[in-house]
Amino acid sequence: MTITPIPTTQLAAVSRSKEAGTVVETIPVVQPEDLKPGQALVRLRYSGVCHSDYSLIHDEFALPTPRPCIAGHEGTGEIVALNDPITKLKVGDRVGIKYIIHSCNQCETCLAGDEAICAEAKHSVFDEPGTFQQYAVSYTSQLTPIPANLDLAIAAPVLCAGLTVWRALKESNTRAGQWIAIPGAGGGLGSLAVQYAVFMGLNVIAIDSGADKQAMCEANGVRAFLDFKLVEDMVSAIQGATTDGRGPHAALVTSPKVEAYTLAMRYIRPGGRVVAVGIPPEGSEFKADMLTSVVERKSIVTSYVGSRLDALEALQIVADGHVKQQVVVEPLRNIDDIYRRMHAGKVAGRVVVDLWQ
Amino acid sequence: MTITPIPTTQLAAVSRSKEAGTVVETIPVVQPEDLKPGQALVRLRYSGVCHSDYSLIHDEFALPTPRPCIAGHEGTGEIVALNDPITKLKVGDRVGIKYIIHSCNQCETCLAGDEAICAEAKHSVFDEPGTFQQYAVSYTSQLTPIPANLDLAIAAPVLCAGLTVWRALKESNTRAGQWIAIPGAGGGLGSLAVQYAVFMGLNVIAIDSGADKQAMCEANGVRAFLDFKLVEDMVSAIQGATTDGRGPHAALVTSPKVEAYTLAMRYIRPGGRVVAVGIPPEGSEFKADMLTSVVERKSIVTSYVGSRLDALEALQIVADGHVKQQVVVEPLRNIDDIYRRMHAGKVAGRVVVDLWQ
Amino acid sequence: MTITPIPTTQLAAVSRSKEAGTVVETIPVVQPEDLKPGQALVRLRYSGVCHSDYSLIHDEFALPTPRPCIAGHEGTGEIVALNDPITKLKVGDRVGIKYIIHSCNQCETCLAGDEAICAEAKHSVFDEPGTFQQYAVSYTSQLTPIPANLDLAIAAPVLCAGLTVWRALKESNTRAGQWIAIPGAGGGLGSLAVQYAVFMGLNVIAIDSGADKQAMCEANGVRAFLDFKLVEDMVSAIQGATTDGRGPHAALVTSPKVEAYTLAMRYIRPGGRVVAVGIPPEGSEFKADMLTSVVERKSIVTSYVGSRLDALEALQIVADGHVKQQVVVEPLRNIDDIYRRMHAGKVAGRVVVDLWQ
Amino acid sequence: MTITPIPTTQLAAVSRSKEAGTVVETIPVVQPEDLKPGQALVRLRYSGVCHSDYSLIHDEFALPTPRPCIAGHEGTGEIVALNDPITKLKVGDRVGIKYIIHSCNQCETCLAGDEAICAEAKHSVFDEPGTFQQYAVSYTSQLTPIPANLDLAIAAPVLCAGLTVWRALKESNTRAGQWIAIPGAGGGLGSLAVQYAVFMGLNVIAIDSGADKQAMCEANGVRAFLDFKLVEDMVSAIQGATTDGRGPHAALVTSPKVEAYTLAMRYIRPGGRVVAVGIPPEGSEFKADMLTSVVERKSIVTSYVGSRLDALEALQIVADGHVKQQVVVEPLRNIDDIYRRMHAGKVAGRVVVDLWQ
Repeated sequence: MTITPIPTTQLAAVSRSKEAGTVVETIPVVQPEDLKPGQALVRLRYSGVCHSDYSLIHDEFALPTPRPCIAGHEGTGEIVALNDPITKLKVGDRVGIKYIIHSCNQCETCLAGDEAICAEAKHSVFDEPGTFQQYAVSYTSQLTPIPANLDLAIAAPVLCAGLTVWRALKESNTRAGQWIAIPGAGGGLGSLAVQYAVFMGLNVIAIDSGADKQAMCEANGVRAFLDFKLVEDMVSAIQGATTDGRGPHAALVTSPKVEAYTLAMRYIRPGGRVVAVGIPPEGSEFKADMLTSVVERKSIVTSYVGSRLDALEALQIVADGHVKQQVVVEPLRNIDDIYRRMHAGKVAGRVVVDLWQ
Repeated sequence: MTITPIPTTQLAAVSRSKEAGTVVETIPVVQPEDLKPGQALVRLRYSGVCHSDYSLIHDEFALPTPRPCIAGHEGTGEIVALNDPITKLKVGDRVGIKYIIHSCNQCETCLAGDEAICAEAKHSVFDEPGTFQQYAVSYTSQLTPIPANLDLAIAAPVLCAGLTVWRALKESNTRAGQWIAIPGAGGGLGSLAVQYAVFMGLNVIAIDSGADKQAMCEANGVRAFLDFKLVEDMVSAIQGATTDGRGPHAALVTSPKVEAYTLAMRYIRPGGRVVAVGIPPEGSEFKADMLTSVVERKSIVTSYVGSRLDALEALQIVADGHVKQQVVVEPLRNIDDIYRRMHAGKVAGRVVVDLWQ
Repeated sequence: MTITPIPTTQLAAVSRSKEAGTVVETIPVVQPEDLKPGQALVRLRYSGVCHSDYSLIHDEFALPTPRPCIAGHEGTGEIVALNDPITKLKVGDRVGIKYIIHSCNQCETCLAGDEAICAEAKHSVFDEPGTFQQYAVSYTSQLTPIPANLDLAIAAPVLCAGLTVWRALKESNTRAGQWIAIPGAGGGLGSLAVQYAVFMGLNVIAIDSGADKQAMCEANGVRAFLDFKLVEDMVSAIQGATTDGRGPHAALVTSPKVEAYTLAMRYIRPGGRVVAVGIPPEGSEFKADMLTSVVERKSIVTSYVGSRLDALEALQIVADGHVKQQVVVEPLRNIDDIYRRMHAGKVAGRVVVDLWQ
Repeated sequence: MTITPIPTTQLAAVSRSKEAGTVVETIPVVQPEDLKPGQALVRLRYSGVCHSDYSLIHDEFALPTPRPCIAGHEGTGEIVALNDPITKLKVGDRVGIKYIIHSCNQCETCLAGDEAICAEAKHSVFDEPGTFQQYAVSYTSQLTPIPANLDLAIAAPVLCAGLTVWRALKESNTRAGQWIAIPGAGGGLGSLAVQYAVFMGLNVIAIDSGADKQAMCEANGVRAFLDFKLVEDMVSAIQGATTDGRGPHAALVTSPKVEAYTLAMRYIRPGGRVVAVGIPPEGSEFKADMLTSVVERKSIVTSYVGSRLDALEALQIVADGHVKQQVVVEPLRNIDDIYRRMHAGKVAGRVVVDLWQ
């Protein structure tokens, strides 16, 4: 079942080796008749560019990079073909592709809403080429419907960054009126985390550096901004920012560095929780002083993606205007340059590539 | 207000230095008129002997041992004097003294039922002499009423070991029908943990060594017993013992050794939780492979004591006959010998000292 | 895809009118090629007989009885044909059919594990003929895999009675060591509820009448049995049976009578919860004294079936031997007589019909 | 222990009968030496006037009015004397008096944070004269510390209206991004409920009537306003206002009328929850169609006051500026006139009486 003619070739950003960079090439489009059961063909409009994409292409990701590699795991577009007679999704539906592209939806884990850890989960880039192409194969089991009033360019990065922080905030076990510290609050992930946290009624302590980031954090409604380049004793400063001086109830740590965890385990209040977000590099380790952790009843939980339900919620909250996802749209052909700027820390906001420009 | 004559002297097991061992001495009894507001004088009958007492007396505990030191933090007896016109407790009430002997019961932390991490919490041995004496000073804020039908000798170790594992099981976030691994299942703490876990409807994988311990674990209703001296690949064996082969939903780890955590983080199923129980020695560290932890959404939570409510529950469950606390009663004068046997691993079951024998 | 030859006709228990009773007739079997997408053909071995089946056939159910009517909503057997290229279920799999036979598994409600209230849910008997036939059409979206070691005759009634009480106990918001009252504890639903409750560590107050039922309840591990024909003041007696005399934390009420709810709202302790279980007749009403309910913070929640996850759990707990489902197997042709005995209260235990005998 | 001279007489608003109205009289002040253990003497500055006060004085309350009656249950001021050697509260502390003035804080119920249903709870007006007097006796067990930066006049009504709706929102079991309907959203209780709900990230459907109330609700951030005088089919309109048209996840019903519950049970979505707030008149009844409730898994929970922790949170959220409590301060001598205007529906916002003006 297809509505529009599906071309036989398309443009895709292909990386054949770390050295070769990423090249926009013409490659074949998987044809509807070649879709396996449960698969859908999505005509992508946009794909967000995530720092993981950079890591992957530059052989710095947690897992070995498959080659040739088409990166990208936050794509939005429309379904143009389906090999699934059962799903409620239809050709023409606006959908998003996330990092998790398939789960069985029948095992105990999936039924408990934890599809990301389904033993049969499939992943963008690793199990099917990613979203830096015009036509991507995905699975109806994990495609996310996009709310009608939400721009597809805006929606793209919500499928990774937005979803990740939304789920992580749920895992933080905090409730409205409590305190949370967000290191990196002025970054791409951090600024979304701040907004979702404020939306949930949390008092946010933003940790970052620079007047611009401070201005942005304050516009996003944080209760305190601490510049880590100016503050000497971060533990005291963070704890002092809370009403009773005992520290925040949780910290949402997006950095993969051991130091960030060690610090967060120190500044959260007794009974507090550190939520580790995002995929750390291979070989990195958690490390915490066990005595203090136990005696102060501190805990560490982890989160790297969310469920289908989390994705629906994260998108709806943006569609409802509660959280603003700011994006800069650039043509796909800029991808290598975007990586360069991203790595140099020169990217302001989230970059989304237009796959047809 | 007092009902029985309070003597001016009493027997107590005093340690003046690691080398001097523990000596039963005659020392003064704090008199009713010297009780500070909120304090109670408890005529103790029994005190459980915990491995922490050994550590403390032998300068191996997490915190520096105060000297002279009266150890013991699981005592039961009757209130003989009170300086608290408000409490519902009365002279003559049968009560227990736990490790936490005071909390403010007014701060946000206490009101949330987390009194152990109240900023004003006081601790047995460190803030008042412990329960290896005939008359102990404690606080009405944390004294635990003992159910009428529960023997005071049986109740004593429930106030530490029972309470600790009961709370830890609550923190494990498991529900009836799920799986939990309990390393050290044949030990004092472990055998209680097994019983409470079975009572809650958990499927228990007992990990320990030896035919005696296996027999005991099986009598306690475990679903599987794995002898760590006989099994080569513990991770596979533990996971293989669960219905779907993905591993237990939680592990309750009472060992303070880093290796026990590292192993547990490996064998729990994705989405699982390791509960760290008990007070580890100073300088010990949590350490876990961060990538796997995050990608498999594993978490670590900690627990070392419980709240007043947890204590009431832990005792009531024993009083109701759901959990059997086995004890061997010995005279207080045996204390040094008990330590010796305890350290040599020659103590079967929990030893309780009779303070009047 | 089929493995065994599918016959073109089969036996089924058909009711053409209330007056005509139920007649075992030869009717066509839906053929594999006629299955709609998402459907499966199940060769049933057994079907439990539930009181709802009686109500339905005798025009006493909450909803109008479709005619001709094939009742039955707790069937077990094997899949013999599938029109679903995506499901992990395979021809030959042992599965169960529940009252809910289809849900979309994509809406917010399904993703939250509440498939029974999916706007697109389909129901046994009403949307497809029920399980009193040898070959039933069902949907892969809600078919329940049966654990390998569980007898299909035993499993059948767990799919309705077992599932219902297991979910209801989850909704009761109680935890191990708390008290629950179960009126009708000696009946089919009640005796399962008692066993699941005891398995979860609840202290059960059984309410029923007669020495036989008392003996059975006690064998199932209840803490108290109250004979409603002998006890004058049930509220006092029920509250008096609890440790502190304040009443049970919850009541699991399976009766559709208004009086049972009114009474339960009185005897549960302040803060307690009444769980209304099962499908009440049309026109029945909740009614409670609002002042007492509010001031004592009592609440009413409802439950009539469970989710896919609840079904897996309810079955596994029986497969693990924690709960015993007792059944009497009779031939399908006895169905009208079974109804008669059921209505006369002469059925001991749960009757399961063998569809091939 | 006292800091300021305590006068022997004071002004109080006394009602000797329904017909006699409320008269400001000079009455004795309880002297510090007459305080019972656990009591505090509070020099009140302000007291909020609640509709319950009107009901009480006019013999329309749920419980018989004690005579002579000093009403008022939301007072703020400073502690001037204490008979409690243990509490952390000190003479001079700014505190609030709520409807619940005492709980034992030692029973299972209190330890679980449910002090309002403690079997020994005491209530303002009924167990000690209320807050329409200059010096009130209360108990350290339930006095609420007022945040330093919060005006005592603003704090007063938060102790009843604010606390009630905050707790009720917690009981609604909703999370950020979900929908809640609030009938009476433009009233005193309703406008606070709207603000707390928006603060928690809920999408609010305000139900009330009139352009002024609509303007206020919209300024408070509701997503939809439905004028019950203009809308014909409220169920359709309320459900239609939600994103998926299935209705709000919860309704917070402050009206004591049976019709309001019946309606709410209809318009909430399947799986939804009605929270009954406030103290209904004696003899009022819950009533709901049981079949629909069960099949749609709807539930009713109740809430009329909150715990000590809820009170701290409700106040802190106002102190943090997240919720605005608007008050009009009037002299105590206006009390009868305030009742008249209140009953005539001519009171805009919450009236607070200044006890010294």
